[in-house]
Amino acid sequence: MSTPQPKPSPARDIVRKVAPKLIDMTEKVVYGDVWERPGLSKRDRSLITIAALIAMYRGDQLKGHLERALANGVTKDEIGEVITHMALYAGWPTAMTAGQIAAKVFEGKN
Amino acid sequence: MSTPQPKPSPARDIVRKVAPKLIDMTEKVVYGDVWERPGLSKRDRSLITIAALIAMYRGDQLKGHLERALANGVTKDEIGEVITHMALYAGWPTAMTAGQIAAKVFEGKN
Amino acid sequence: MSTPQPKPSPARDIVRKVAPKLIDMTEKVVYGDVWERPGLSKRDRSLITIAALIAMYRGDQLKGHLERALANGVTKDEIGEVITHMALYAGWPTAMTAGQIAAKVFEGKN
Amino acid sequence: MSTPQPKPSPARDIVRKVAPKLIDMTEKVVYGDVWERPGLSKRDRSLITIAALIAMYRGDQLKGHLERALANGVTKDEIGEVITHMALYAGWPTAMTAGQIAAKVFEGKN
Amino acid sequence: MSTPQPKPSPARDIVRKVAPKLIDMTEKVVYGDVWERPGLSKRDRSLITIAALIAMYRGDQLKGHLERALANGVTKDEIGEVITHMALYAGWPTAMTAGQIAAKVFEGKN
Amino acid sequence: MSTPQPKPSPARDIVRKVAPKLIDMTEKVVYGDVWERPGLSKRDRSLITIAALIAMYRGDQLKGHLERALANGVTKDEIGEVITHMALYAGWPTAMTAGQIAAKVFEGKN
Repeated sequence: MSTPQPKPSPARDIVRKVAPKLIDMTEKVVYGDVWERPGLSKRDRSLITIAALIAMYRGDQLKGHLERALANGVTKDEIGEVITHMALYAGWPTAMTAGQIAAKVFEGKN
Repeated sequence: MSTPQPKPSPARDIVRKVAPKLIDMTEKVVYGDVWERPGLSKRDRSLITIAALIAMYRGDQLKGHLERALANGVTKDEIGEVITHMALYAGWPTAMTAGQIAAKVFEGKN
Repeated sequence: MSTPQPKPSPARDIVRKVAPKLIDMTEKVVYGDVWERPGLSKRDRSLITIAALIAMYRGDQLKGHLERALANGVTKDEIGEVITHMALYAGWPTAMTAGQIAAKVFEGKN
Repeated sequence: MSTPQPKPSPARDIVRKVAPKLIDMTEKVVYGDVWERPGLSKRDRSLITIAALIAMYRGDQLKGHLERALANGVTKDEIGEVITHMALYAGWPTAMTAGQIAAKVFEGKN
Repeated sequence: MSTPQPKPSPARDIVRKVAPKLIDMTEKVVYGDVWERPGLSKRDRSLITIAALIAMYRGDQLKGHLERALANGVTKDEIGEVITHMALYAGWPTAMTAGQIAAKVFEGKN
Repeated sequence: MSTPQPKPSPARDIVRKVAPKLIDMTEKVVYGDVWERPGLSKRDRSLITIAALIAMYRGDQLKGHLERALANGVTKDEIGEVITHMALYAGWPTAMTAGQIAAKVFEGKN
């Protein structure tokens, strides 16, 4: 019922004080239910999640989801391809920002 | 004709040097005119303003408008509900970022 | 546990065939749970929902939520004020599109 | 004090009934004031307006502003270049939609 | 060097008259180069493309890319899961609109 | 074939390690090809690029493109006008953030 891989981000505890119901739904609906559905693999879910975060320029959440993607079997090279592909569909600025965030995540992983 | 509550943010003086007409309109059109219209209460205007800022992921402006919302009678719990509600309409990433900004604003208020 | 007012849009039945889990969550999480929470009145929830839809230029969903807003006690004049306010926070194009959609909804209500 | 060229769109009269203050500001602030400021030529203002509308995917307003751009001296070929340039900064989908809208506007002008 | 599957949309010929360079790049850079790179499978590229289009509310392009996704081996059920997943990351309105577009595409395929 | 003015940002070297193809396209397609097309002047291309970046709230890329705009002959006052104009089309928050970024760029130029 729960994803073993990356630990919940500290953001979750900070936000819990402000919006406890939101974190309750994060745990029960987002990670406890939808991410666990068998209709798409975890790797597929990570691919579409990081694609959406890059395209929408949601930098704050991208770092954690890049770590989750690596844990779910998306390789660093594949993340580079996603970022490159997104340049075409969401514009260069979104891809350049994502590339810089990914560079930081990858460094921390070496 | 002017809102008594929160002081103009220092951003206004910084931007005035670059775009004086923008700040002129901020003072005459945004705060001097539309925010003062009786058709919606200040509390209602704060609710819709923070909802829009959260939904559009406009983090830079959210802090000041959360302070204004508190001054206009929106409670901390209600702000938490707005953030939770927005997760459904604008996606989790917008709500998680808003929750972290709200946590900082609320801490500064204790 | 359920909102009595506007009937579910026909969109819900169309989408159910494609993404049944989405509609299940629409009924249990969105309308069955979050909209029913006492932390914000139905009128407040309608105000922030239409503000977010206008700001994000989500025209397809705005019609139904304007009808819901009227059912939840937001007046036509107040909807006009929300649209006007959003012009300042999300830009004129979002407000002009919203105004045209509202005009159609209001006509259908006369 | 007023732009002579394209006539106000019929949208303005429709929206006036719903949000009269919005149209009042459209006439006094948007077209009566900012568009008339000498700091940027009308051609420059048309260029940045259509660039922003394309990038934000605001199709409803693009048609009218393409007509205004032609009236302000932006050529059809230049509009094609703006659309192409925007593909890189806002993504192919925004440009493809803009190209189809421009094709309709240009046809109506032949 | 070219994708065999879905035919170029008629949109391409319409836009070619307005912005020929854009279509030249569509054919050489988007489909002739990036989509053909081996770093991600066609199925993966379709998954991230439709995720991004749904998240950004780019309805005009979604229809064609849903057809391409089906041709690239994404099943109808998987598309339903992508739409459901996107509700959480980009908000319900984006998912509801996508669900209605997918319903039309799937009907045409039966 | 290349723009003489501002040096490539250090971001380009950081992103190259993660997504080398993206930077290859940045150099060959974005700056080596589209920016060099004679259909629009460099000044026009800078105007529409900063307008789009402001409107889409792409702050990370705005600094570099404001420097490029100054190099391409857009004056500081004209940048202030673009920011003011964008407040009307993309909302006040986008303009206020852009104004603060421009203030920093202009200071560094004195």
